[in-house]
Amino acid sequence: MQKLLIIFSLFFLTSAGAQQGKNNKVVLVIHGGAGTILKSQMTPEREKAYTDALNAALDKGYAILNSGGSALDAVEAAVRSMEDNPLFNAGKGAVFTNEGRNELDASIMDGRTLGAGAVAGVTTIRNPITAARAVMEKSPHVMMAGRGAEKFAIEQGLEIVDPSYFHTDSRWKGLERIKAQDSLSRISNDSSMKKDKTFSDYIQTTSGEWLGKFGTVGAVALDRQGNLAAATSTGGMTNKKFGRIGDSPVIGAGTYANNNTCAVSGTGWGEYFIRLVMAKSISDMMEFGKMSLKEATNEMVMKRLPALGGDGGIIALDKDGNIAMPFCTEGMYRAYRKDGVSVVKIYKEEN
Amino acid sequence: MQKLLIIFSLFFLTSAGAQQGKNNKVVLVIHGGAGTILKSQMTPEREKAYTDALNAALDKGYAILNSGGSALDAVEAAVRSMEDNPLFNAGKGAVFTNEGRNELDASIMDGRTLGAGAVAGVTTIRNPITAARAVMEKSPHVMMAGRGAEKFAIEQGLEIVDPSYFHTDSRWKGLERIKAQDSLSRISNDSSMKKDKTFSDYIQTTSGEWLGKFGTVGAVALDRQGNLAAATSTGGMTNKKFGRIGDSPVIGAGTYANNNTCAVSGTGWGEYFIRLVMAKSISDMMEFGKMSLKEATNEMVMKRLPALGGDGGIIALDKDGNIAMPFCTEGMYRAYRKDGVSVVKIYKEEN
Repeated sequence: MQKLLIIFSLFFLTSAGAQQGKNNKVVLVIHGGAGTILKSQMTPEREKAYTDALNAALDKGYAILNSGGSALDAVEAAVRSMEDNPLFNAGKGAVFTNEGRNELDASIMDGRTLGAGAVAGVTTIRNPITAARAVMEKSPHVMMAGRGAEKFAIEQGLEIVDPSYFHTDSRWKGLERIKAQDSLSRISNDSSMKKDKTFSDYIQTTSGEWLGKFGTVGAVALDRQGNLAAATSTGGMTNKKFGRIGDSPVIGAGTYANNNTCAVSGTGWGEYFIRLVMAKSISDMMEFGKMSLKEATNEMVMKRLPALGGDGGIIALDKDGNIAMPFCTEGMYRAYRKDGVSVVKIYKEEN
Repeated sequence: MQKLLIIFSLFFLTSAGAQQGKNNKVVLVIHGGAGTILKSQMTPEREKAYTDALNAALDKGYAILNSGGSALDAVEAAVRSMEDNPLFNAGKGAVFTNEGRNELDASIMDGRTLGAGAVAGVTTIRNPITAARAVMEKSPHVMMAGRGAEKFAIEQGLEIVDPSYFHTDSRWKGLERIKAQDSLSRISNDSSMKKDKTFSDYIQTTSGEWLGKFGTVGAVALDRQGNLAAATSTGGMTNKKFGRIGDSPVIGAGTYANNNTCAVSGTGWGEYFIRLVMAKSISDMMEFGKMSLKEATNEMVMKRLPALGGDGGIIALDKDGNIAMPFCTEGMYRAYRKDGVSVVKIYKEEN
C-alpha cells in the first residue's frame, strides 16, 4: 500500500541564499492534473514515472527558492519541467485538437505586482509558460493568442519548435479513440452534457485506457521575500474544436496570485473554472470574507464547483505558507516541498 | 450647456408583458466606451450622433424588458445595436490592428445560471455578441478564438460578412495616424509605459483628433423575473499587435453577472481590468464584503484601478435595480432607462 509517497530529503539549508531576505520560509506546490486517477488502474511503473516527474519539477523550482530566488522564477521553472515531460498534458505532452493539432495555453501571475501574462492557442512555442512570462514582462499586454503570440515569441527569441515536436503516440491514440467513439462531437451537440456528465465522466467515457494521462500542470510558490506567484500550462481538451480556450490562460479563472492573499493554479473542467472565476474567488473570499485558505478553497472546489456541475482541483498557497490542494475528482497529481520535506500524492484517499 | 441630456419618454406600461413575472422593475444600462471625451473637443453634431446612438440601443433593449423579455435578450439586443453603429469601437466600427485587420472580441453572461460565452479575435462575424451567446447556449464551451470561433459561427448559421464590412475610413485614418507617430510600437518596446501613461494619455498621444471615437460597448440589464445579464463587445485597441486579447471577452474581467449580486460590463485599459479581475471583484466585494454596489464599484474603479496605473470605467446594476456608472477617465458614453425614464450622459462633470 504505497499510497503515501513521501520523500524526505535533506537540503543544504546553510546555503548563501538561505541567509538573505526577510523570510526564511519558502514553499513550492505543483500539480499535474486532476481527474479519474484510480489506484486500481495504475501500474507501479506508471506511478513511479509520475512520482519521479513531480519530484523533478519540485527540484527545479525549489532549488531557485532555496537559493533566494523569486517565486516567479520558481513557478516558471517547475512548470517548464512538466511542459518538457510527455506524461503531462502541457508542452511536449499536449493532447490533440479535433483537427489533429496541439494548441497550447498558459498563464503566469506575479503576486507582488499583480503583473500577469498569458498565451492561448499557440502551436510552435516549446515552453508556453515562458512565453506567458514574456508577455507579462516584455509587452504592455496581458494576453496574446495564436499566430500573433507566436510572432511575439519569435521576436523575444524564445525557443520555437516545429509543431511535430508536440506529437506523442499516446496522445494521438487518445484522439483516435475519441474520434472513433465520436463522443465529443456528440456531446458538443448535446446541451444535456453540462447537466449529466462530470469532467471525469467525460474523460472516462471518451478516453478508455488513456485515463490518467491527461493533466494540466501548474505551480504556486512563496519565496524568501514573501512574494507569491502562480503559473498554469495546458494542452487543453483532447478533440477540442472551434479554437476552444479553457481556464488555464484566463487570469482569475485558472491562475491568480496576490501577495495579500494567496496564489492559485487550477486543473479540471475549464468551462466551470471560468464561469466561477475560480482562482480570484478564492482570493476574494480571503480578502473580503476573511476566510482562511482552507475554508475558501473548500468552499469553491468542494461545494460551488460540483454544485454547478463541474469538477477538478486546485493548488493554493497563502502568504503565510499554508497549503491547500482540494479536488473533487478521483485523484490529482500533486506535490509540495516545504521546510525541506517533499510530499507527492496522487489518489483521493490520501488527501 | 446641454451637458445633461435627459430624455423623458412615455412607455405603455400596461402592455401584456408588464403583468407577468414577479418583479415590475426593469432596468437597462449601457456604455459606449470611456476615455478622453471632452466637451471642448465635441461638436453639437457629434454629441447628437452619440446621444441618438445610445438612445437607439436603449430602445432596442428596453422594449424587450418592458414586454417581459429576458435580461439576456435585452443586453444582446442593445449591444447588437451599438455593434451595427460605426460610432462605436465594436462590430462595424471596430478599430484596426497593426496589420490592418479588424479583430473583434465579445462576451456575455447570464446571472441566473452563471452561463457564459465569449469569442476572441474574430474577423468575419457581423455581431460578435451573438456569437458569444451561441458559444454559451449551443456549445459545451465558454470561450472560442479566431478561425475556430468563426467555423462555429458558420455552423450556427450566424451572419458572416467579408472582413471589408468592418472597414470604416475614420478608423483607417486612426490607424494611419498612429502608425505615422509609431507610438504604439515605441510604447510596446518601452516597459515604462505601464508606469508613466494612462489609457487616456495613450489614446490622446496616439490618436489626435480621433479622440473620443474609440469605445468598447456594453450593457447590463435586470428583467421582470429578477434576472441579471451582462454583455460586452469591442474591436480592441487601435494598432494592437500579436493577437492581443483585452478584457472584453474575459469572463470576470470585462463582463460578469450573478443574480445574487450584480451585472457588470467594463471599458478602458483592458490589461488592468484583467489583472484586477475587475467585474468579479465587484461582485465578490458585495457577496463576501457586504459592500453596496456603489461602494464596490467606487473601490475598484476610482481607487484600485488608478492605483495600479490603469483607467477606464464600468456600468453595473444590482439585483435591486441600483445603478452605478463610475469611471476615472475624462468621460464615458453611458445611458440607462429605468422606470420609463432615460438618462444619457457623456462627460465627467455630470457623473
